[in-house]
Amino acid sequence: MPQSVVGPEIERLIQLLSRLPGLGPRSARRAALHLMKKKDLLLEPLARAAAEAAASVSVCSVCGNLDTRDPCSVCSDPLRDASVLVVVEDVGDLWALERAMATRGRYHVLGGTLSPLDGIGPDQLNLSSLMHRAQDGEIKEIILAVNATVEGQTTAHYVTDMLAGTDVRITRLAHGVPVGGELDYLDDGTLAAAMKSRTPF
Amino acid sequence: MPQSVVGPEIERLIQLLSRLPGLGPRSARRAALHLMKKKDLLLEPLARAAAEAAASVSVCSVCGNLDTRDPCSVCSDPLRDASVLVVVEDVGDLWALERAMATRGRYHVLGGTLSPLDGIGPDQLNLSSLMHRAQDGEIKEIILAVNATVEGQTTAHYVTDMLAGTDVRITRLAHGVPVGGELDYLDDGTLAAAMKSRTPF
Repeated sequence: MPQSVVGPEIERLIQLLSRLPGLGPRSARRAALHLMKKKDLLLEPLARAAAEAAASVSVCSVCGNLDTRDPCSVCSDPLRDASVLVVVEDVGDLWALERAMATRGRYHVLGGTLSPLDGIGPDQLNLSSLMHRAQDGEIKEIILAVNATVEGQTTAHYVTDMLAGTDVRITRLAHGVPVGGELDYLDDGTLAAAMKSRTPF
Repeated sequence: MPQSVVGPEIERLIQLLSRLPGLGPRSARRAALHLMKKKDLLLEPLARAAAEAAASVSVCSVCGNLDTRDPCSVCSDPLRDASVLVVVEDVGDLWALERAMATRGRYHVLGGTLSPLDGIGPDQLNLSSLMHRAQDGEIKEIILAVNATVEGQTTAHYVTDMLAGTDVRITRLAHGVPVGGELDYLDDGTLAAAMKSRTPF
């Protein structure tokens, strides 16, 4: 957009919004316009909320989750099962598992997957802290809840090797047909895995 | 998401982001996570930009545009052709025409279209100020650049009737095949209009 049409403050807002996942340049303009039209209801509250989140959010020193307190709400929840540790790649995966209420265990956020081509080796992930947690005796089971991608599975194998000396039970999420999924649309790998892990009906 | 997983500041940020056009609850969570991961690069600048925009943006008292000054940059640009006035429904349409560099005239933002069922009558739109501008003698042509929807065309007819007594020339945008468009995918109305308004090649 030519510089003359909107002031630099608006231009800056559009530019920052366009860097959000899911918003391109066009939808960022639309979002900025929507915000400015609802200045009192949306733009000012968003400015405050963003400032408050920026001031209060930190990385949990125990598990790597993002929260407004440290240790995070999950780590400091006394009702959680301290014997189960769910290893995830990313905070978004932790949120997804929490939404699904899939576990009452605690989490460990790796912060990514092993990806040598991108320069991400074991030292770039939260692996040493995982090793420390696995060795403190409280944890009985580590569930590898990583993505079913090549990188995720590589990372899962690395973690399994790393934890080989400990007496922690290591499990991974089941592969199979997604609930609501249609067989015709599933890939061969998923179908083969679902067939192999079939269960009594 | 259960209240326990993320703090209220994060919850509030997600909730506000989910009200942006183009972002649903899921993508709002993803956007919030992305912002928090890049706190220094994205979340804090966004908080500042939103606060600055909220503090500086106002509606132009002349044309209804949103800008950081009043009159807006378009209205106060001396190089603009003061004899041409482009009537648009919304600020987004003004921006679109400016991006396309479609005109060197000035604008008048109606702020919507006539829609009796939604309670939007002539008094809810910036029509009286349009009448005043049309009568001040400087404007020779008013271009109705409203959407080619039923509401847009109804509004265009209303504006034409309203301006009938003035000696301003009233025009509207051409209907036709969009540049890059394929005939097979166009609706009948567009094809008929394009045929009717065919031009020498």
